[in-house]
Amino acid sequence: MNKGIFITIEGGEGSGKTTLIERISHTMQQRGKTAVITREPGGIPIAEQIRAVILDRSHTEMDARTEALLYAAARRQHLVEKVMPALEAGKIVICDRFVDSSLAYQGHARGLGMDEVWSINQFAINGLMPHLTIYMDIDPVVGLNRISQSAEREVNRLDLESLAFHEKVREGYRLLLEQYPDRIVKLQAENAAEVVYQEAMAVIDARFASFFAAGGV
Amino acid sequence: MNKGIFITIEGGEGSGKTTLIERISHTMQQRGKTAVITREPGGIPIAEQIRAVILDRSHTEMDARTEALLYAAARRQHLVEKVMPALEAGKIVICDRFVDSSLAYQGHARGLGMDEVWSINQFAINGLMPHLTIYMDIDPVVGLNRISQSAEREVNRLDLESLAFHEKVREGYRLLLEQYPDRIVKLQAENAAEVVYQEAMAVIDARFASFFAAGGV
Repeated sequence: MNKGIFITIEGGEGSGKTTLIERISHTMQQRGKTAVITREPGGIPIAEQIRAVILDRSHTEMDARTEALLYAAARRQHLVEKVMPALEAGKIVICDRFVDSSLAYQGHARGLGMDEVWSINQFAINGLMPHLTIYMDIDPVVGLNRISQSAEREVNRLDLESLAFHEKVREGYRLLLEQYPDRIVKLQAENAAEVVYQEAMAVIDARFASFFAAGGV
Repeated sequence: MNKGIFITIEGGEGSGKTTLIERISHTMQQRGKTAVITREPGGIPIAEQIRAVILDRSHTEMDARTEALLYAAARRQHLVEKVMPALEAGKIVICDRFVDSSLAYQGHARGLGMDEVWSINQFAINGLMPHLTIYMDIDPVVGLNRISQSAEREVNRLDLESLAFHEKVREGYRLLLEQYPDRIVKLQAENAAEVVYQEAMAVIDARFASFFAAGGV
């Protein structure tokens, strides 16, 4: 059994995942806990190389199934090299996007089928699911507007997809919420960042009270 | 439905797959048929890039599941860009290694489990299985000796694996033969190349008599 806590943060574009993660991380530091903040490919050389193949803009002809398999491969390597060692050391790992992103984006929005995308991700994660997933729910119009107004954030390929696609992504997350009501907690990401942060911390503290009481790493 | 014929050639190292494929291809040309000879990644840029990640010798730390997912991704793209268009044009496609290699090498010999590796390959091929698979059975000692005596053939990473690994690969192929008795035909690859070729052509002609009688591409 892993001794650490594995938390994933999910949500559409512009939902404020990065800001939330920074604040949670800061709080953990203040409590003297080691929080490993990561996102795929997470600086893992093999996973970085795989990601480079996916994001290469000359690859407009990449098949959707190829892409889903590549995401699963990068996920596996990131998990093995970064997430698992941290959990085994009793740390808190907070990952920006994980398996639910593949299910919502590739499985539902791109139409590959959530069950099918789940089958290759089952192979990739080999039983290692997050203890908690915080889903930042936002109207895609609001989220995409936030991004376009931000000078700091480069607009990537996914941002350029149609609004209809992002609506499908949100629908995919809704289906996941129904399927995993215990693991996934939905927050209203249109609220002020401070409110979202307070709600997230309340969920984390309630869920892992014994971990914090025990005084981990 | 595809109008062409999809044949895969499988077998351990040094089993003579390349020689057999060249002879079959030559015969097809003499008959005025177009045979597309290929092997993954088959000159498909995305698949070539994926293969480069797999074969990078600095990646001794690559996880076996990551590798299996990458092989499945390269397979998918090769299938979409090269195999499917040829089959739709009514051609004969002969592929040097395909899904059975992943099942025998990664699934059985590396111990990932044939069912698990099959699940990600099912996703990759999406129903497109070969009409016929010719399995070149050979004692690994004989096969590896053939390779080490050949100046033309570069010894790659897989050749360097232990003999025990190659015995496991052969065992994996035996399990596949039991599982797919109609699709897979076993030939004794230790026989003279001429004998193996004659047997392979007899199988192909018997299996696809109506295709050749109809006068395809």
